[in-house]
Amino acid sequence: MGDVEKRIVIVGASAAGLRCACRLARIQPGWKITVVEAENVFSYGACGMPYVLSGDIEELAVLRRTAYGRVRDEDFFSGAKSVDVRSATRAVDVDVERRTLIVEGPDGREELDWDELVLATGASPRQLPKVEEHSRVRVFHSLDDVKPLKQGLMRGEIGEVAIVGAGLVGCELAEAFASLWGADVTLIEAGPTPLPDLLEPELGAAIQRHLEENDVRVLVNSKVEAIEADDYGVRISVTGEQVAADMVVVAIGVRPKVGLAKAAGIDLGTTGAIVVDETMATSKPHIWAAGDCVETPSAVTGNGVHLPLGSLANRQGRVLANVLAGRGDRFPAVTGAMAVKVFDWNVASVGCSAWAAREAGYDVKTAFVTGEDCAHYWPEAKLILLAMVYDPSTRKVLGVQGAGEGEVAKRIDAASLLIGAQARLDAFTRVENAYAPPYAPAVDSLMVLACAAENQEDGVIGIGPMADLDDAVVLDVRIDEEREERPIAALQVVEIEFEEVSVRIDELPEQPITVVCAHGTRSAEIVRRLCAAGREARYLAGGMSWRVRALPKNE
Amino acid sequence: MGDVEKRIVIVGASAAGLRCACRLARIQPGWKITVVEAENVFSYGACGMPYVLSGDIEELAVLRRTAYGRVRDEDFFSGAKSVDVRSATRAVDVDVERRTLIVEGPDGREELDWDELVLATGASPRQLPKVEEHSRVRVFHSLDDVKPLKQGLMRGEIGEVAIVGAGLVGCELAEAFASLWGADVTLIEAGPTPLPDLLEPELGAAIQRHLEENDVRVLVNSKVEAIEADDYGVRISVTGEQVAADMVVVAIGVRPKVGLAKAAGIDLGTTGAIVVDETMATSKPHIWAAGDCVETPSAVTGNGVHLPLGSLANRQGRVLANVLAGRGDRFPAVTGAMAVKVFDWNVASVGCSAWAAREAGYDVKTAFVTGEDCAHYWPEAKLILLAMVYDPSTRKVLGVQGAGEGEVAKRIDAASLLIGAQARLDAFTRVENAYAPPYAPAVDSLMVLACAAENQEDGVIGIGPMADLDDAVVLDVRIDEEREERPIAALQVVEIEFEEVSVRIDELPEQPITVVCAHGTRSAEIVRRLCAAGREARYLAGGMSWRVRALPKNE
Repeated sequence: MGDVEKRIVIVGASAAGLRCACRLARIQPGWKITVVEAENVFSYGACGMPYVLSGDIEELAVLRRTAYGRVRDEDFFSGAKSVDVRSATRAVDVDVERRTLIVEGPDGREELDWDELVLATGASPRQLPKVEEHSRVRVFHSLDDVKPLKQGLMRGEIGEVAIVGAGLVGCELAEAFASLWGADVTLIEAGPTPLPDLLEPELGAAIQRHLEENDVRVLVNSKVEAIEADDYGVRISVTGEQVAADMVVVAIGVRPKVGLAKAAGIDLGTTGAIVVDETMATSKPHIWAAGDCVETPSAVTGNGVHLPLGSLANRQGRVLANVLAGRGDRFPAVTGAMAVKVFDWNVASVGCSAWAAREAGYDVKTAFVTGEDCAHYWPEAKLILLAMVYDPSTRKVLGVQGAGEGEVAKRIDAASLLIGAQARLDAFTRVENAYAPPYAPAVDSLMVLACAAENQEDGVIGIGPMADLDDAVVLDVRIDEEREERPIAALQVVEIEFEEVSVRIDELPEQPITVVCAHGTRSAEIVRRLCAAGREARYLAGGMSWRVRALPKNE
Repeated sequence: MGDVEKRIVIVGASAAGLRCACRLARIQPGWKITVVEAENVFSYGACGMPYVLSGDIEELAVLRRTAYGRVRDEDFFSGAKSVDVRSATRAVDVDVERRTLIVEGPDGREELDWDELVLATGASPRQLPKVEEHSRVRVFHSLDDVKPLKQGLMRGEIGEVAIVGAGLVGCELAEAFASLWGADVTLIEAGPTPLPDLLEPELGAAIQRHLEENDVRVLVNSKVEAIEADDYGVRISVTGEQVAADMVVVAIGVRPKVGLAKAAGIDLGTTGAIVVDETMATSKPHIWAAGDCVETPSAVTGNGVHLPLGSLANRQGRVLANVLAGRGDRFPAVTGAMAVKVFDWNVASVGCSAWAAREAGYDVKTAFVTGEDCAHYWPEAKLILLAMVYDPSTRKVLGVQGAGEGEVAKRIDAASLLIGAQARLDAFTRVENAYAPPYAPAVDSLMVLACAAENQEDGVIGIGPMADLDDAVVLDVRIDEEREERPIAALQVVEIEFEEVSVRIDELPEQPITVVCAHGTRSAEIVRRLCAAGREARYLAGGMSWRVRALPKNE
């Protein structure tokens, strides 16, 4: 490559394509960079669209602007970035041998010659099978999808809304419809809890509770069988039930747009997305791909995963520009870090859920804790629920997830770096974070989580935080205020405070004991003590704070 | 070790000693664990003391309680933890051969036999030389130091206060005195800026500005020559100036308490603290040490560093318990991650400053950026100023620092993991974080910072954000609103907006150009473009947002 002038053609003007184009134009100013884009409007922060609907972001136009307020249109890219973006121009065919791309635009059909071709074709929303098109049945994928919904809400035409799919977008939409507009929202999910692909069922159940506390009706294990729409409304038949609404939004994920890649004979992976190596090269020479149309290997399982995230698309675009410029860069396997705001809760995850890890052939265990995001004496300290999936035979950590009012994403960011480095439990106990009372407890919750897993391997065994306690003999070691705040629903409960268990151990019945406290810390200590005394005992991992929402205090 | 019953004696009942004691009692229930503590009151969250003074935390007693409200006193540790804590008991001598510790307590002198001895003796506040004791001249180190200050403030007896030392505690105290109590605070620092050991001078200068905006008078490069106190007040003579106050607090750091270690012939390091290996073993067999009395190797330089942080002390205590129990654990080299809240700013750092890295023999360069902590279109996005210190010959990152209203600690936590893994710039560009608009920009600011450093090595050279622009030919590529918000003070300024530079390049004078924008992003792009056109150009790293506080907008 080097000094020879080159022609680069990029298909798709969103994050990956434009990042690649702009960087290439900077580091190879002699090259000719052309981006073709099927849509009229492009280069907008699509991840912000739910927040336009919710009113957090005032107007749609904000998403198209730079941080300093300039609209990112064709003139911006040609003037500021020396990149030729041709909008409303569809790539219809590619000739791999002759290195040409056929496009159809406002000026008709044209053939573009390229030395290197980049496919950044993105993804399109998945549709439910056998559902007819109707203005009351919508997806939420591009700017055009936002306006009619927002107008319908503003005009009061949408009072009841159904959302099919409680994934990232579905959960964001539930908040968007309910919080500002007060719409009655029914969230319909085929899996056992919201966010089933990201989270353990226990954490998903806690998020379902939080959605319900915010007046969202959540139907889980509910497959959509049919949708009928007419001028008056929409009726959704789900497993054993009918849901009526003014509008339904189908948010069941996206599928990579790979028509052009298929036409070029490029290899696709098991996810249906384009297979690329660490340099973003496809199986065909001189054809590269990046963004929502590719799959990348998971750092945990090695299997290809399709993660349509703006952060990854941006990074892939930069890597690809460096590679094309001959600078040597690479995009390694991904950990799959993700975050989503669900009303007042921050939710984030990285790596595999226990379910996905088992699918990939791992033998796994799970640890749960309730932690605080700051020193417990800091007045703004908030709770976070954390879960860790690990392989007990190697002690390798396969996934970490968290949710709660407190700062969760910070812990997941750290876990992502560690999981990317194939870290084991011991590395998680050695994290050195920037500690001060307003930022973290002296022992950060991520370390507490790893210690809980280590202790579990040492015989201090936790049962899942949502486990049925009906048949258990429960030892509740909390203080009275805690018991009142989060009452326990179990048939056999012995109440002995933590500090007194040692001297009152003889009061315990002879059956196996399930020890319960607020966060799972004291109860784990008591389990160790009971086991040392020859008793059979387990503890409720995560404690009652995970399981039950606090009752308002009597003042 | 294993099943044989052992006697462990621990000197010091704060974080390291108690964490070690409690874990040992749990995992080796047959062992006898004794902790001797010179003070009456122990086991409190000392890091929270400034926030008691400021009123953020209501009362001192909160710091002594568990998260669920129980006081951590002798009864708590014996009942709940099976650890015998003997307060008001001073360790006066140690016999290494006979394995005994002489203590003096309420019941007189006594000899304690041990199989393993743990020194967790902590640190004591540094004092200024030649300053006589007086009730108006104070330190801020233990619970006893808080009460008289808070009472003085509540009674209105302290209206003017001087703080000697603008380190972590000095900065926290400045806020504590000023924010709730409205005291007139003068912060006196011998170094060139606040927090001189942690931060580049540029970042220190930004923090000085923030302190001054909050009505703290900051005297830098100011050595205290004398302090005189009487019934009416205190007069502090600093370089070229006299400061009068009702009270002065000396916060110039701590020194490790090593009297007992010295008496035992234990090796001390260059910092004056006890040298330990990765297992927390001292140079004498069967004697171990942990917490604020030890030094540990820096992960960056390999040199011993003394970091009296509650987070490290806790972790060392756990590691030592595991080691003593024969479980094999280790405490590796430290990155030195730290955080401090300074009024509305979050400040954090990890690794070496450029100054410290040069002292350790590194050739270093620095990169600066202004970033946002969320997607720029997220309404609550806030600015953060970030600096990176790296070795251009190896591209190894030696330190990262940040400050601003936005979320800084999260970026420093990630940097800490990377620096601990000896990461180079390229690893910082590959961070996979949990992205969603409320949590991070699509390209996180930490990655932008690493890219700025990479670009600098590629010839896109930034000058320090506080550089003198008087003699420079400045090209200001901002838009009008930005220029009004943060005016530039320079003699020769050409104003051409970013988007128009390409077509107006001939308007530029022939001298070397200094390009300026808001955050340092657009200006860096223009530098690359100007250099490609054969011009000599640099940019103001971090941009005007780093350099100048925004003026209030005319509405």
